[in-house]
Amino acid sequence: MNSIQKLTEYFSEFPGIGPRQARRFVYYLLTRNQDSLHELTHLIQDLKKDIKVCQSCFRFFQDAKQHPVCSICESTSRDHTVRMIVSRDTDLESIEKTKSFNGLYFVLGGTVPILEKNPESRVRSKELLKMIEHEAEKELKEVILAMNATPEGENTGEYVEHLLKPLAEKHTLKISHLGKGISTGTELEYSDADTLKNALKNRY
Amino acid sequence: MNSIQKLTEYFSEFPGIGPRQARRFVYYLLTRNQDSLHELTHLIQDLKKDIKVCQSCFRFFQDAKQHPVCSICESTSRDHTVRMIVSRDTDLESIEKTKSFNGLYFVLGGTVPILEKNPESRVRSKELLKMIEHEAEKELKEVILAMNATPEGENTGEYVEHLLKPLAEKHTLKISHLGKGISTGTELEYSDADTLKNALKNRY
Amino acid sequence: MNSIQKLTEYFSEFPGIGPRQARRFVYYLLTRNQDSLHELTHLIQDLKKDIKVCQSCFRFFQDAKQHPVCSICESTSRDHTVRMIVSRDTDLESIEKTKSFNGLYFVLGGTVPILEKNPESRVRSKELLKMIEHEAEKELKEVILAMNATPEGENTGEYVEHLLKPLAEKHTLKISHLGKGISTGTELEYSDADTLKNALKNRY
Amino acid sequence: MNSIQKLTEYFSEFPGIGPRQARRFVYYLLTRNQDSLHELTHLIQDLKKDIKVCQSCFRFFQDAKQHPVCSICESTSRDHTVRMIVSRDTDLESIEKTKSFNGLYFVLGGTVPILEKNPESRVRSKELLKMIEHEAEKELKEVILAMNATPEGENTGEYVEHLLKPLAEKHTLKISHLGKGISTGTELEYSDADTLKNALKNRY
Repeated sequence: MNSIQKLTEYFSEFPGIGPRQARRFVYYLLTRNQDSLHELTHLIQDLKKDIKVCQSCFRFFQDAKQHPVCSICESTSRDHTVRMIVSRDTDLESIEKTKSFNGLYFVLGGTVPILEKNPESRVRSKELLKMIEHEAEKELKEVILAMNATPEGENTGEYVEHLLKPLAEKHTLKISHLGKGISTGTELEYSDADTLKNALKNRY
Repeated sequence: MNSIQKLTEYFSEFPGIGPRQARRFVYYLLTRNQDSLHELTHLIQDLKKDIKVCQSCFRFFQDAKQHPVCSICESTSRDHTVRMIVSRDTDLESIEKTKSFNGLYFVLGGTVPILEKNPESRVRSKELLKMIEHEAEKELKEVILAMNATPEGENTGEYVEHLLKPLAEKHTLKISHLGKGISTGTELEYSDADTLKNALKNRY
Repeated sequence: MNSIQKLTEYFSEFPGIGPRQARRFVYYLLTRNQDSLHELTHLIQDLKKDIKVCQSCFRFFQDAKQHPVCSICESTSRDHTVRMIVSRDTDLESIEKTKSFNGLYFVLGGTVPILEKNPESRVRSKELLKMIEHEAEKELKEVILAMNATPEGENTGEYVEHLLKPLAEKHTLKISHLGKGISTGTELEYSDADTLKNALKNRY
Repeated sequence: MNSIQKLTEYFSEFPGIGPRQARRFVYYLLTRNQDSLHELTHLIQDLKKDIKVCQSCFRFFQDAKQHPVCSICESTSRDHTVRMIVSRDTDLESIEKTKSFNGLYFVLGGTVPILEKNPESRVRSKELLKMIEHEAEKELKEVILAMNATPEGENTGEYVEHLLKPLAEKHTLKISHLGKGISTGTELEYSDADTLKNALKNRY
């Protein structure tokens, strides 16, 4: 197998990329000059050096100061009484962009597919329990489950809610879910009953 | 122009149907037997005979009893203090199916496209004002604007809100909107800030 | 079941139409005036009166002159030595529009799905055999199988070819197929080997 | 800008990749271990070292033997009297996979968008002319233009044909095009007249 084939295989593992597009990536790189390829390899090499996993919320962050936790977890101006549980870093970023959540996060690192036999292997279950136990003894009051409104997202939410229930009862933590309603682009005619019910209940 | 062409033209005016699919409809009818075509023409002829427009909410209804208003408007078990304004009969049906709204409706009969110069020609503006004026003197307390969360739907909502403002102030009517949040199928990563903000605010 | 529901059911049987769009059609008709609905029912009633099935090629045609065969089959300026077999009237129309075929047609009236146990029930098998037998004794020399290049189209072509083989041998008829190559919109990178091979062979 | 952002920007330049998917790639790499990232950077570094551009047909090839031309151009069992002009290496690969072309190639390295003012800047115009001039004096007899059947592909073909005309006349070279017809997946009803005409002409 030559370099083109090997690199094609590597790119085929990228999320959402099939062998054909992977091969296009390789041909694209072949048309770049040597400097541009050097830039790419340096960026990849630096990635793991510069980026760490936060020991509190498990998101990736640029660690300039050799700190074990990220700037959000460290911030004293954020509300430490509420933690939002998300599946992935990209979800966290979407929420941050709204500038309307001031609490902390926890990144599960995955989702739980329906009928998965070992859900604990798909998400950071132990790390979540340990963090909640630890924080509940300090100031944590509410855990928000912020999952996609897809079957897999809802299954993940149910698994996490079940996982946290004993701790929530022990520490009287509130477990809440993102509000349902009509989202941008929604047409009433094509909406399910649940969405419409909630849109009515949450009318403003 | 022969019968095939004429009927193709007629079907081309159906919502969402182009000339090619219209022609397929005609060929489909050509393969039906005479009885089936008679059934179709009778159903079409009966439509206007059987179905009337409610004089209160302007929805289409099957009038068995020569009543001027539909069974919803007539019902004493429904909440006459709240009216939901929808664009079309199909929206009303979607809401009815949820079984979670017990008030009355008003069907605008259309939407107001962005930059439309004569919005009053697109929806039942006069009829809406007359109905609200009339009902506000009786028991009406709240008007819910239930539009699609699309640019055209939002434009329609803004037009109707503006239209109703003087009456709302005069009669201290509340004007409300469907709650926003994540709807079925929503992925957080692809959600706009507005949807996420509202999902957070309306968490449960 | 009221008129709206009955007519919705009828429209749901139209090709490519689901219950939701069928219902939209009904509401669309409800907004038409009485004259427009009369026009529609008359067009439907006239359809079977005006349009007949050609006794030679089995296409639908407007019969002004009480003739048993259509204007194409009747025409002396068309080439009666070649017959193109198509699945549907719409395919025939597509070919006619190109103005590059001057022979006659035969409309099968359907396609043969893969694994169909009674293919003869899906297409006009008997009528085809009878027509070919009859024409082969006159001037017919070639039969062109003009099917969609889809799995169902190819299956139909294979069935028809198999069906015609004995007659073709008996009368030394040529059976041909539409040429393969790149069609409008084709990208080489996404083309199958068969298409590319034929494009090479048929280069011009 | 941190490492995540810089690498996201780099991946955003990959063909068909937007900023969102680029970011997903970065998070994907963050979940890989150090060994896997080393493998990737080595593959990228080796790419330019191992892969060269053929000095005759300008395709990328793995040069094990320090040869200036690729194995296809070098092969004595291939037909040197015909050259197929393609836009990209991926097109060449698609043709090779069919195993039905035994001539040589020339890779233009791009396409000419419609209305492009400097078409010569988009494709290897000079290199093409030089190669054709050189080969025509040896054994070259035919040039096949193998472009996508898209507007941009056809525009590229017209540009190249115009470019080669003087040389073709001087050396009595034949310029040919890929044959048109129905390609896999084609439905007759949705085919353009040109495709159908050619399918008829090339029937077999």
